[in-house]
Amino acid sequence: MITSTANSQVKQAAALAKRAKARKETGLFIAEGPKMFKEAPKDWVEKVYISETYLEKEPAAGEGYSFEVVTDEVMKAMADTQTPQGILALIRQPSWKLRDVMGKETGRKPLIMVLETLQDPGNLGTIIRAGEGAGITGVLMNRETADIFSPKVIRSTMGAVYRVPFVYTDDLKGAVSEMKEEGIRFYAAHLKGTKDYDEEAYTEAAAFMIGNESKGLSEELSGIADSLVKIPMEGQVESLNAAVAASVLMFEAARQRRRR
Amino acid sequence: MITSTANSQVKQAAALAKRAKARKETGLFIAEGPKMFKEAPKDWVEKVYISETYLEKEPAAGEGYSFEVVTDEVMKAMADTQTPQGILALIRQPSWKLRDVMGKETGRKPLIMVLETLQDPGNLGTIIRAGEGAGITGVLMNRETADIFSPKVIRSTMGAVYRVPFVYTDDLKGAVSEMKEEGIRFYAAHLKGTKDYDEEAYTEAAAFMIGNESKGLSEELSGIADSLVKIPMEGQVESLNAAVAASVLMFEAARQRRRR
Repeated sequence: MITSTANSQVKQAAALAKRAKARKETGLFIAEGPKMFKEAPKDWVEKVYISETYLEKEPAAGEGYSFEVVTDEVMKAMADTQTPQGILALIRQPSWKLRDVMGKETGRKPLIMVLETLQDPGNLGTIIRAGEGAGITGVLMNRETADIFSPKVIRSTMGAVYRVPFVYTDDLKGAVSEMKEEGIRFYAAHLKGTKDYDEEAYTEAAAFMIGNESKGLSEELSGIADSLVKIPMEGQVESLNAAVAASVLMFEAARQRRRR
Repeated sequence: MITSTANSQVKQAAALAKRAKARKETGLFIAEGPKMFKEAPKDWVEKVYISETYLEKEPAAGEGYSFEVVTDEVMKAMADTQTPQGILALIRQPSWKLRDVMGKETGRKPLIMVLETLQDPGNLGTIIRAGEGAGITGVLMNRETADIFSPKVIRSTMGAVYRVPFVYTDDLKGAVSEMKEEGIRFYAAHLKGTKDYDEEAYTEAAAFMIGNESKGLSEELSGIADSLVKIPMEGQVESLNAAVAASVLMFEAARQRRRR
């Protein structure tokens, strides 16, 4: 049992929770709580830490995994949350390819989210979660987008992060061009959109582009879209929260695909 | 100029930012930053506080208002945010009536959000913001729903809180019954919904019911709905974030109302 917060494993977990650099160097990330642990694909799980109190309630919690018991105090030092739920796992980061994002492995019709410099971790997590529900095949992001492996993103995906393929790229424009050659049509969510979003058909291979929360999409990226679409709005509201805008678009695509 | 953080006005502002009780007792709330200040209806604004630094940049900032200059340090003590934007206003809470929520004053066709024990301030603010965009006439909430006047909700409405009528009630069921007598149909967002949400028509007077983030709607409330609707989902995702689910429903209503 680990009883000291000075233990190197404790320090590593705390670093993984706090620092993107530590996550990048090790290729690991942290999943906290029973739900996020149980939903993790078994072969992604590197190591599991269970608090004494949790183990008393769930004696079989670590069965089949490489696990270590820690004091409640140590668990608190490892975790990102104020009131840790007693179980925490180190998970190996998946390495998806663009072909996964396009649904090539599963034979599904592409429905892709392209995120450019999306900053808010909650928005990113919410888009992954809603995206799984809407049936997207994957997510493509530039490196300036929030770190998907940060605890806040992981939490807000509610497990969808294990199932929705995603790729970070240094060359978003290049990756989009590559996908256009595969016949995927790109719809940029844009305040200056010339078409209402529900006037376009998303029943064939499609991708939505969503930009930064305050600046929107760069001209470079919206310039290569096949169509700029807007969500028409009443009142004086200028724009929607990025996760809301993304969800309205994704579920419109899902709706059309169900109906035809 | 207020130079001391011990000043009673400073303490009042800080209390209004932090405590629901202080907001209830005074009937005031805090709006922080130039955007939230400028969008406030002028006759709602009780008092404005401007930091020295902000006043140098914007010498006319307080013109036409009862305002007071404060040191940057004092502004920091008053504000809820880590890096205050230099202007903060005490705003009088509006007192809307159910008839406002139903759009009676503006003659618009009712499109109402009923929120039961919605806990997350970010979700509430996001629903108000998206709701204005989708053209809702108002929001009805039970008292267990998050406090709309908390700084986090106010911020995340992006100004929509000034324009979307809302009412808190001790008797949500009673208020719904009252509105049903006005011919409004109620659609409960429910995981056990018997109809896909896009199979219903929301072109006449309509209201959506959204429940608590983890427990959903109470049986008492969903029991009086005219229809239980679900957002069909792919993958293994169990539910959507409450603000996302609400937005998908509201924008489906908006889409139908535009098209017919």
